[in-house]
Amino acid sequence: MSKPSITKDAGRWFLTDYIRPEVDWRRTPQALGEAPPPVQKPVAAGAEVLALPGREDWDIPDCDLATAIARRESRRRFRREALRLDELAFLLWATQGVRERLHEAAVLRTVPSAGCRHPLETYLCILNVAGLAPGIYRYLPLDHALVLEREPDDLAASLTLATHGQRFAGEAAATFVWTALPARTEWRYAEASYKVIALDAGHVCQNLYLACEAIGAGTCAIAAYRQDLMDALLGVDGAEEFTVYLAPVGKV
Amino acid sequence: MSKPSITKDAGRWFLTDYIRPEVDWRRTPQALGEAPPPVQKPVAAGAEVLALPGREDWDIPDCDLATAIARRESRRRFRREALRLDELAFLLWATQGVRERLHEAAVLRTVPSAGCRHPLETYLCILNVAGLAPGIYRYLPLDHALVLEREPDDLAASLTLATHGQRFAGEAAATFVWTALPARTEWRYAEASYKVIALDAGHVCQNLYLACEAIGAGTCAIAAYRQDLMDALLGVDGAEEFTVYLAPVGKV
Repeated sequence: MSKPSITKDAGRWFLTDYIRPEVDWRRTPQALGEAPPPVQKPVAAGAEVLALPGREDWDIPDCDLATAIARRESRRRFRREALRLDELAFLLWATQGVRERLHEAAVLRTVPSAGCRHPLETYLCILNVAGLAPGIYRYLPLDHALVLEREPDDLAASLTLATHGQRFAGEAAATFVWTALPARTEWRYAEASYKVIALDAGHVCQNLYLACEAIGAGTCAIAAYRQDLMDALLGVDGAEEFTVYLAPVGKV
Repeated sequence: MSKPSITKDAGRWFLTDYIRPEVDWRRTPQALGEAPPPVQKPVAAGAEVLALPGREDWDIPDCDLATAIARRESRRRFRREALRLDELAFLLWATQGVRERLHEAAVLRTVPSAGCRHPLETYLCILNVAGLAPGIYRYLPLDHALVLEREPDDLAASLTLATHGQRFAGEAAATFVWTALPARTEWRYAEASYKVIALDAGHVCQNLYLACEAIGAGTCAIAAYRQDLMDALLGVDGAEEFTVYLAPVGKV
């Protein structure tokens, strides 16, 4: 990715919608009749896929919405207690779960996304989840399953390093890492894609904050990270897919 | 605001955190000892301020968090039924309510914000709320009150025009419009402010989606709008403060 000149003016402009009239809407990939990118990144041949418990098998206590909103706060200190697999499944469903598959190119999820593009993938740096070996997994929303992506040595230390020494990233039971695959949104919105991808990541992360409240867990999102180290840790290419946001989760 | 060259490369770069090492952290306004911008935009002298009902006076039904998440969907068709003032107060609290005032420069809210900067203001285009004359109001989180900002003619038609003809913006009971005051975040993060401001707007909007579920209302966020018309409608300058996201709300 080539480096643009990021001045305050350019950054502020990015947050406006002045880009929209600049887009040549006759030449977006969608307008040109190109097939949309897959809604879920494919699984490598031979990779280990683990089914997650479905809603009917969760033991998640009722939690009043207003209470969850009132209690939500940034939580960076976690108890050394494992997350259960159904708790993890609940958090994944709350943040990226599929409600309905409309057709090959579009699924409705528990969170909104501009133009139903859902440009994010969810990686989990699993450090302390009952029944899961430590490692980097990816959520497969269409299958409500996990795929084991990598088992790096020193995952906790690597996470701390890649977040500028924020130790709670490595002390979590599971650190969520969201990547963007911008081509999914560019297919419809071309150069008007970037602000809405960030908005989408905000939607997702807020549901994680609230869902944590239901299971006696907490999180504190991280936007300050070393881009090259995080992308290398996940094994993504940093161009067609790259890290955009993180959220370490643990019991509190 | 001068127009930068927005290529796909520049847009994607904006979503990474490669900007952080480029910032001269010794020269941010915070590092230079400058006072932070106010956490709430001041109220014009003589403006009409209306106190909102507090939590103890709301009649908001209990709503299970998982149920709200499961039910949330984009809702663009609204019944012609007024929102009550306590319902509006609940939505405002859920999206920008103050939990605690730490000191002059920082308040804890019901939503997270990078560096606790909370760069957003909430405007309400009120079309059908019991007890409120139609007009454009602004939420005052520190006071849990509304201030009447303007009473434009043809508010509904202006909203539809400013959202490229999305009629539900003018058919809502109240259309939320969030502006950013980027200086609040730049005070701490300088050129690393823009992605996190968009993330913050996503956090806020997701709480609105969920809170709507508790009161039989719905919303569908709007990121496609005419920047100049929306800023003019609100009466903001388009440089130090400008529209970033909208969400029409109505009973469903």
